[in-house]
Amino acid sequence: MSSMKKKKVVTIGGGTGSFMLLTGLKKYQVELSAVVSMADDGGSTGVLRDELGVLPPGDVRQCLVALSDSGTTLRKLLNYRFEDGSLKGHNFGNLFLSALEKISGSFSDGVGEAMRILNVHGQVLPVTDQDAKLHLEIKGGKILKGENEINHSSFSPSEIKKIYFNPRVKANPRAIECIKAADVIVIGPGNHFCSILPNLVIKEFSEAIKKSKAKIVYNCNLTNKKGHTDSFDVDDYVESINSFIGKDRIDYVMFNTKKPSKKLIEKYRRSEGGNFLVDFIESKKPKRKYKLIKGDFIMSEEVKYSSLDTLAKTRSFIRHSSDKLSKAIVLISEIENYKNIIKDII
Amino acid sequence: MSSMKKKKVVTIGGGTGSFMLLTGLKKYQVELSAVVSMADDGGSTGVLRDELGVLPPGDVRQCLVALSDSGTTLRKLLNYRFEDGSLKGHNFGNLFLSALEKISGSFSDGVGEAMRILNVHGQVLPVTDQDAKLHLEIKGGKILKGENEINHSSFSPSEIKKIYFNPRVKANPRAIECIKAADVIVIGPGNHFCSILPNLVIKEFSEAIKKSKAKIVYNCNLTNKKGHTDSFDVDDYVESINSFIGKDRIDYVMFNTKKPSKKLIEKYRRSEGGNFLVDFIESKKPKRKYKLIKGDFIMSEEVKYSSLDTLAKTRSFIRHSSDKLSKAIVLISEIENYKNIIKDII
Repeated sequence: MSSMKKKKVVTIGGGTGSFMLLTGLKKYQVELSAVVSMADDGGSTGVLRDELGVLPPGDVRQCLVALSDSGTTLRKLLNYRFEDGSLKGHNFGNLFLSALEKISGSFSDGVGEAMRILNVHGQVLPVTDQDAKLHLEIKGGKILKGENEINHSSFSPSEIKKIYFNPRVKANPRAIECIKAADVIVIGPGNHFCSILPNLVIKEFSEAIKKSKAKIVYNCNLTNKKGHTDSFDVDDYVESINSFIGKDRIDYVMFNTKKPSKKLIEKYRRSEGGNFLVDFIESKKPKRKYKLIKGDFIMSEEVKYSSLDTLAKTRSFIRHSSDKLSKAIVLISEIENYKNIIKDII
Repeated sequence: MSSMKKKKVVTIGGGTGSFMLLTGLKKYQVELSAVVSMADDGGSTGVLRDELGVLPPGDVRQCLVALSDSGTTLRKLLNYRFEDGSLKGHNFGNLFLSALEKISGSFSDGVGEAMRILNVHGQVLPVTDQDAKLHLEIKGGKILKGENEINHSSFSPSEIKKIYFNPRVKANPRAIECIKAADVIVIGPGNHFCSILPNLVIKEFSEAIKKSKAKIVYNCNLTNKKGHTDSFDVDDYVESINSFIGKDRIDYVMFNTKKPSKKLIEKYRRSEGGNFLVDFIESKKPKRKYKLIKGDFIMSEEVKYSSLDTLAKTRSFIRHSSDKLSKAIVLISEIENYKNIIKDII
């Protein structure tokens, strides 16, 4: 199929989910772009934003590492965190991107320079080039201000009145162009309110997705986040996302049906409590517009974390398999080629 | 002359002088190495040494920039200095080298990784991999501790009892190997007590130079440093250096005979006072073992500083011309090829 043009695949998310996805997808003959949310304002990133007035570099950094063709040392370097003195807690890769932003004049230009320096295959695009705080307004008037505050607060999704950036931001024009040209748009996995929606709340960006000719794949999260999406099932996630990009806009939903090991489930139950695995409730709806792709999409054993993956170490233990998930996504993009010949393959 | 092996040229010095020299020499078909002093302990470098326990990265950084084949942005990035918050004053390139030292386990291994990342032609070798403070002992017992203190103190060179590292350090074995293999060793220009001698006080290193088969070229400073070398003439510099590397060891001395413009001289006299241009006093000695290469080795106009050269901006205004000086050095190395045929060309 060498005569066929490479499929243009765009991922939308934050750092950790996109890192996983890009690491798998880059092994295939696709043209990859990653659109990354700009909401992060905690930790070392929060300090850089406050002190230097830069955009949050952490999520972009992870995507650059995933797509970089550079050696192990450079990847280690980008994830290196200083341990002492006034630099304590600062991640080297974040300083790298912040310095490039200062030199280049805008964050996305800085990221462009980073792509050249790191020999990145594909492109990494911040969803916006403007500095603003994510706000989440609860019915009754309470407003959570900043991704960090939202991430550490509890609320019921049904009580959310509005989620938005303040001040209002414009989408990065290059991210819009990228959506327009896409064959496949892959949303998620990732923290729903803090990584996924912060892309879609930017109106021009979600409008571009709505109008796009691309097929949209949603990688549903494996687990719900306590205090945020406790009772969500697959349809709740899908509806929440479609409320930004258009009714029934998602074409495919990747849903893991492989049960994690008892040991892992037990470990998780201890730390999270309650019903944490995302359910698909067949009987809930008479007919759905999206195709559900059921499969084994998780890592088979407890994850062995490499030093390249320091951020993920502190997060969940039930995780997507980069290889399995990306293979399924590439398969979907191939099926789309043969749609006119083969009908209803799924 | 393509059949001839490339000459191995080693420069010895600190940051600014070596940057100038390497920038010029890299245009020629020579195999370049830069041995760099590890005495710096002021400013951002001092903070990094205190807080992280790393070796001083600033001088190495300048040599890497000179020899790097990377684009303008990367060079700007390496010289970028943060301007706000807790990172204020820290140079990005210094953080880059310190993080690599932490990851690699030793400073010279970190520099090795930096050379690969930055696509450096030639090599940059810290003179030692060990952490110590430069000490200067004055007759009577007073000891100046640290390069920064020495740099900002006044003393008479004739009153110096000893200059040494405390604790004693070993030379970087790769720097020794490099000296053993050298065809031409180029010493200076640079701050005599703070950049040049901190290489030569390491005994194994100066012993290696003494025994080396290489021709030794000394680029004499253009100006004396107030409080350090006020009354030095060319022979004083030469004798001071030879006292470490062996009697009459220097083969060639590059001496500028071009007078700077009146405007520059006036500017300099206002800031430095007294006799600041280094003299050569013909009548002082009956016969010298070194050959004096007289010539125009300075920049013809007041230096236009580029943003790539931020460090130099704060230093002297009468400066060596990188092009003129390196052309003369390459000529000397070529003359050495024909020594058996052509005698007494100089």
